[in-house]
Amino acid sequence: MKNRVITFSREFGSGGRTIAKKVAEKLGIPCYDEEIIDRLVEESGFDKKYIAEESEYASKSRLMGLILAGRTNGPTNQDQLWNIQYKMICKLAEEGPCVIVGRCADYILKDKADCLRVFIHSDIKKRAERIVREYGERDELPEQRLNNKDKCRAIYYKFYTDMKWGIATNYHISLDSGELGIDKCVELITQLY
Amino acid sequence: MKNRVITFSREFGSGGRTIAKKVAEKLGIPCYDEEIIDRLVEESGFDKKYIAEESEYASKSRLMGLILAGRTNGPTNQDQLWNIQYKMICKLAEEGPCVIVGRCADYILKDKADCLRVFIHSDIKKRAERIVREYGERDELPEQRLNNKDKCRAIYYKFYTDMKWGIATNYHISLDSGELGIDKCVELITQLY
Repeated sequence: MKNRVITFSREFGSGGRTIAKKVAEKLGIPCYDEEIIDRLVEESGFDKKYIAEESEYASKSRLMGLILAGRTNGPTNQDQLWNIQYKMICKLAEEGPCVIVGRCADYILKDKADCLRVFIHSDIKKRAERIVREYGERDELPEQRLNNKDKCRAIYYKFYTDMKWGIATNYHISLDSGELGIDKCVELITQLY
Repeated sequence: MKNRVITFSREFGSGGRTIAKKVAEKLGIPCYDEEIIDRLVEESGFDKKYIAEESEYASKSRLMGLILAGRTNGPTNQDQLWNIQYKMICKLAEEGPCVIVGRCADYILKDKADCLRVFIHSDIKKRAERIVREYGERDELPEQRLNNKDKCRAIYYKFYTDMKWGIATNYHISLDSGELGIDKCVELITQLY
């Protein structure tokens, strides 16, 4: 039988990662997030910072609409990273029940695991407050940071999955964490496992 | 204090209306769906069948991209219906806590009531089975009926609200009723009230 896996997609600053961790804790199953980056460092040989930036976000060239940028000579580093990440996520889902945060796991595991696909989002004002609280001030305005991050994630998702990010029908449950609160979201999701 | 209202948007055949009714029953509050059509007949003088077809779906001319069709001489019948429906939904929300199905109530009540905005969707295969079971066979294939209905609703929604229908961030909770089951959806939503 296929393992039961919960995949979390989330808007930047929505608290999706926190919810994922709490759900995993409550269910007593592993939560893969940072751990995936560490494993990717081991397997790919790429630098940790490079992986964190390139394994979930469209790179700058793609953001500028240059889909073929660097591809005239075959797959780019990001494509290689996608392939390694793809296999790794399949392997994690085979190992046992778990929670996986981001990284298009919802798409990758679509027919490979018994998935509960979750999307967490929140109002931009609440997300802006949250990222300043969690990650501190930056030169860039928080709203601008959020828009850039979400845009890069959406383009990355679209490029590798050919699906649109944030469409309700792609997920079994989508929740507004800003309105419902982190704990309520955790409660609802664990009930569905 | 503003009344607490639950608005349901739903894909055709997803069971959203059934879920809405069960939620209202469980909470002991009225559910407005068909009742809105009856009230519109009374207030507008339009025929019931005409209202059922025009009060939630884009008319054929609009579907063909003719946004201005019939508008060169001012508002169309559908625009008048929209205005009456708009006021009616505001009035229902003022009267007391309730559940309202469809009709862009989520948009209309955005800043006028303490709303819980729900979206119900389901896989097209499951919806096709459901509409044949509920409404019987038609000449048109069930998948085609679904696509047409959803398309007309989405265009109607976009035209009057300038928002995109089915985007997760527009709702506090979006649920896949085909995967989670009607009763589970009812349970989750009543918990949030």
